Amino acid sequence: MHTPLCDTLGIEYPIFAFTHCRDVVVAVSKAGGFGVLGAVGYTPEELEVELRWIDEHIGDRPYGVDIVIPSKYEGMDSNLSGDELAEMLRSMVPQETLEFGRRLLTDHGVPLAEGDDNSLQLLGWTEATATPQVDIALQHDKVRLIANALGTPPVDMIERIQATGRKVAALCGSPYQARKHADAGVDIIIAQGGEGGGHCGEVGSIVLWPQVVKEVAPIPVLAAGGIGSGQQIAAALALGTQGAWSGSQWLIVEESANTARQQQAYIDASSRDTVRSRSFTGKPCRMLRNDWTEAWEKPENPDPLGMPLQYMVSGMAVAATHKYPDQTVDVAFNPVGQVVGQFRKVEKTSAVIERWVQEYLEATSTLDEINSAAAGV
Amino acid sequence: MHTPLCDTLGIEYPIFAFTHCRDVVVAVSKAGGFGVLGAVGYTPEELEVELRWIDEHIGDRPYGVDIVIPSKYEGMDSNLSGDELAEMLRSMVPQETLEFGRRLLTDHGVPLAEGDDNSLQLLGWTEATATPQVDIALQHDKVRLIANALGTPPVDMIERIQATGRKVAALCGSPYQARKHADAGVDIIIAQGGEGGGHCGEVGSIVLWPQVVKEVAPIPVLAAGGIGSGQQIAAALALGTQGAWSGSQWLIVEESANTARQQQAYIDASSRDTVRSRSFTGKPCRMLRNDWTEAWEKPENPDPLGMPLQYMVSGMAVAATHKYPDQTVDVAFNPVGQVVGQFRKVEKTSAVIERWVQEYLEATSTLDEINSAAAGV
Repeated sequence: MHTPLCDTLGIEYPIFAFTHCRDVVVAVSKAGGFGVLGAVGYTPEELEVELRWIDEHIGDRPYGVDIVIPSKYEGMDSNLSGDELAEMLRSMVPQETLEFGRRLLTDHGVPLAEGDDNSLQLLGWTEATATPQVDIALQHDKVRLIANALGTPPVDMIERIQATGRKVAALCGSPYQARKHADAGVDIIIAQGGEGGGHCGEVGSIVLWPQVVKEVAPIPVLAAGGIGSGQQIAAALALGTQGAWSGSQWLIVEESANTARQQQAYIDASSRDTVRSRSFTGKPCRMLRNDWTEAWEKPENPDPLGMPLQYMVSGMAVAATHKYPDQTVDVAFNPVGQVVGQFRKVEKTSAVIERWVQEYLEATSTLDEINSAAAGV
Repeated sequence: MHTPLCDTLGIEYPIFAFTHCRDVVVAVSKAGGFGVLGAVGYTPEELEVELRWIDEHIGDRPYGVDIVIPSKYEGMDSNLSGDELAEMLRSMVPQETLEFGRRLLTDHGVPLAEGDDNSLQLLGWTEATATPQVDIALQHDKVRLIANALGTPPVDMIERIQATGRKVAALCGSPYQARKHADAGVDIIIAQGGEGGGHCGEVGSIVLWPQVVKEVAPIPVLAAGGIGSGQQIAAALALGTQGAWSGSQWLIVEESANTARQQQAYIDASSRDTVRSRSFTGKPCRMLRNDWTEAWEKPENPDPLGMPLQYMVSGMAVAATHKYPDQTVDVAFNPVGQVVGQFRKVEKTSAVIERWVQEYLEATSTLDEINSAAAGV
């Protein structure tokens, strides 16, 4: 499954793995794919530590960093620094919404101390907080790609990254968004169907992928949303994409930092157990349905806030569930795509890549056999 | 694209075309595919007329008939005859809901006479009304397949159809429903992803298709939801299905009985202009979003009724929009899948089939080239 994009980035397989775990980044790139570290949860200082660790373990393989600069978010026109913006946004979180979030946690037996409100953090959800992450990433030679998970990156940032010889990618959920990325000069467009985990639109992959390919040709397109096997990668390439962008699978590998409890929740889930919910990030994001997501749907409860305000509330839940993983599955943040329904066990990362390559070859053989049968008729 | 299922049914390409238009059935089967007539809107007498016409025009090609026997519907345990059931259901339609539907139409300038309430018809939405349709279909030799669009057909009906040498198919939106079909003895399972037009679930095709293939193997699976090109068929076959079931494309062919106005509405639509709505049939069904679908979503308005009661109200809109197509686009029933976004013109049916076959071959060539490049590395 070697496409031109593989040569551009110096990789063997066009398998792009989005993950928040440095170990998975290393394992994927070493197995011939392309690991991409999600930076949104790290301060610049923490990100520097992670990237240095990856550099030391990845050998001569390349990898990527994924940031989040949404096209629209609260405070985006403020021109404030990260700290000032955080201060302003903090004051915009309604006490009632914050109290509702706290109560959801304590009602589920999560021990929540006053100090746990320090989760009213901004993280890297804005241009002001993502830019220092890009600054850090550009100091690491093996980082060959910066991807924006949500929206078109600012043109000056695109140009700054490209001037260093690196590539810029951006996710989209419609041909309209893909066109905006292309016009801004993005090198690689990631088309994510509505079945995808994390932030996604409503149009299904099988419909979206070829529309985006057609819209931005000859810019290479990666297929996201529903990638969890080599057959699905074969389908993606048949639809004109140059590779696959996956996230869900990497939550369920041995190298992942997810807890055993959380991995079991993913393994137990069917494809109908996910929901597009605004309850964690403020924008529609696919995750496992649980008490937290259901509570924010009820008309009598507060509405989720916009991005990045909602995470200043839900961050409490994320922090608490990291601290008390066994007590808090019903209010935890478990972003994942519908493809979760096909995963039945925890595997080693290298075994997943090998399996996908093998399945891909089987799928293309199947098509060859069908064509031979047709020729024989 | 010749699969074993083609030999089972005596066709050239595993392209199954669902349509309410007899002309399209004939055109598809004559072009090497397999036309399937949706029977739900016809009385047994009308259906007999349609099938006789098809028999006279289709040459020696086979075709299918699609009925609707939902797994659950109002009045399903009544054991009443069709006429008695219709009478009972008519009395269950709340006056307020009926008035709301009438007002929606008159507010949009649709001239609605008192007599137009004869649209409080039951149609073929129940076992009592679908069974006579099956009786008619079984009298036509060229009908080689009976499909149930919604739910597992009753076991005695499956056996009765199979005893005549015909095949039985049924649609599903989850591996769970597929298992029920398989256990009941259905010959062909149609897995329809959430992007599909008409009644559909929420799981996307790229995720659903391989799950259903795995669940019911070796029973052949047809891929539905997002089929509108040969590339999409290649993707479906790569995922282990034996063919494609399509509906949206056939609304936009020259042979279709859809009005020019309605075809233009489809051509103008993007993939984001469809919605899963209960406002016409009572069950979630994908269609173009318009004033009618939006009105039934509003909390202050009556909720849609269950199946088949809701159609006893919306049938008025369907009848009116057939009568006054140019005045009523905003309240018309336009079932279609997200794939509508890729259709840009009205084509001849035979040209569509030829295009799909050509595109399929191009897609498999692309995969061959990718494999050759990999072998050369």
